[in-house]
Amino acid sequence: MSDAPFKQVTIVGLGLLGGSIGHAVQAFLPDTTVVGYDADPEVRTAARALNLAHRIADTAQDAATGSDLVIFCVPVGAMAAAARAIAPGLSKDALVSDVGSSKATVAAALAEALPGHHIIPAHPVAGTERSGPDAGFATLFRNRWCIVTPPADADPALVQRLVAFWEALGARIDTMDADHHDKVLAVTSHLPHLIAYTIVGTASDLEQVTQSEVIKYSAGGFRDFTRIAASDPTMWRDVFLTNRDAVLEMLQRFTEDLTELQKAIRKGDGETLFDHFTHTRAIRRGIIEMGQDDARPDFGRSDHQGQG
Amino acid sequence: MSDAPFKQVTIVGLGLLGGSIGHAVQAFLPDTTVVGYDADPEVRTAARALNLAHRIADTAQDAATGSDLVIFCVPVGAMAAAARAIAPGLSKDALVSDVGSSKATVAAALAEALPGHHIIPAHPVAGTERSGPDAGFATLFRNRWCIVTPPADADPALVQRLVAFWEALGARIDTMDADHHDKVLAVTSHLPHLIAYTIVGTASDLEQVTQSEVIKYSAGGFRDFTRIAASDPTMWRDVFLTNRDAVLEMLQRFTEDLTELQKAIRKGDGETLFDHFTHTRAIRRGIIEMGQDDARPDFGRSDHQGQG
Repeated sequence: MSDAPFKQVTIVGLGLLGGSIGHAVQAFLPDTTVVGYDADPEVRTAARALNLAHRIADTAQDAATGSDLVIFCVPVGAMAAAARAIAPGLSKDALVSDVGSSKATVAAALAEALPGHHIIPAHPVAGTERSGPDAGFATLFRNRWCIVTPPADADPALVQRLVAFWEALGARIDTMDADHHDKVLAVTSHLPHLIAYTIVGTASDLEQVTQSEVIKYSAGGFRDFTRIAASDPTMWRDVFLTNRDAVLEMLQRFTEDLTELQKAIRKGDGETLFDHFTHTRAIRRGIIEMGQDDARPDFGRSDHQGQG
Repeated sequence: MSDAPFKQVTIVGLGLLGGSIGHAVQAFLPDTTVVGYDADPEVRTAARALNLAHRIADTAQDAATGSDLVIFCVPVGAMAAAARAIAPGLSKDALVSDVGSSKATVAAALAEALPGHHIIPAHPVAGTERSGPDAGFATLFRNRWCIVTPPADADPALVQRLVAFWEALGARIDTMDADHHDKVLAVTSHLPHLIAYTIVGTASDLEQVTQSEVIKYSAGGFRDFTRIAASDPTMWRDVFLTNRDAVLEMLQRFTEDLTELQKAIRKGDGETLFDHFTHTRAIRRGIIEMGQDDARPDFGRSDHQGQG
């Protein structure tokens, strides 16, 4: 008998995350069958050509049939509709999970759409700025954290199987409640995306500096922000709408701190600026020591390859 | 006779930029002698060990003697003092330049410190988050823009020689006046650094989310900001103090835009969010098409190497 935590996994939504799970299951869980589904027929066609799964189903109901794990990889605002669509084919024994970036709202939506089913939401903190079925790759989750947010009444054995699944895909696991997850991600992911989207918008809409100048001189720091501001708009719209309170709270803190630095600049208070800029270096060191970023200068960008 | 634009170049300040110029001149202008100087004796010792120049001078006066180009590579707030220190050894025929990130203030400071000398400020828009004498490398300027800001009365032949020098180091050249430079860099470099410093400070100072959680889940977007927030505190303090008006103006625009998105989140206005997030994708494409960033997902970070 196989040691695989699940015999058959269904992935609903074949973008960056769904496609990466498809590749990763085939690479790292050879005894597990993976079935893919996407509501968009063009994505299903692309997914077949890309071998994102052993089989790409043509209907939501067919996709879930016979699977003991179903993972929703759609924008968080689309979870409820996707869950209702697969409900007719879903076994009562199957575990339902997802990869959404906000967890309290998604947990509630899935519970409402699939009453009586086993639901354990999760969030692999991994991704790139790409989207679509051709954006995925098998090693996306390697050495990244996957946060599992089991409801209070979750079956511990099912939690353990979901943990084993993500560990097989290379992830490191943490468990916490959904509300805490949403606060943590508001600061480590949602606020950074909001800020990046804002500054890229600001820069592209000035009278005194042209867009062409912004592009030319972007290596001064701006280009770093354009990467995450190129992320999928639908996904991010949904994140902000479903994690509103935590995002607004973190944004309030950010604005207070920015106002303080603004005041220091206006007053010519170099000491406050220097102290603040010194304090922030330690965080970068922590991230690199924890293996959560590339230690090479400039993320190891190709400009600097061969710097010797 | 050599075609090199300058026979002997003096670099004052041997950090990331100064050290990189030292390496680059030795690599790409073999007929040019490069002399280095730093006010810090420990940096001079390190610079000798690293071969940052053909010769490391022990006094500022000696450093400038016999050079037809002197480039100041110190924090912009330290330019005037560095200029006064080398003045006794500086020939009246020598060209004085710098690599500072703000130009109007620096041009005024150099003109006041070195009356009667030829001064043409410049700014290579290149760097990494590292600092110090061991941070430099010869290819730092390759394919990066160097903005030359000649005063109205600059000798065109000297401008041309300075352009030839930076081109030899691999840079692409633009010329503009200092005030316009300061507005452009306020948006492409100074504001991004201010925002990054702010958000990293905010994240490290929350009660509900620990610093350890911020570090662990930084791959959700936050880690991108930590890179530039690890830049040299003295350099950046000086940039904000010397380009105050342009930075505060751009910050005002940013704050207005952020308030608009904040309101959209609060009101649940998904359409405004979606439209904004779609608009910002085009800038990233422009930057990649112009060769100003790595086209690979996630800047080509090492986590994803071998994704195939």
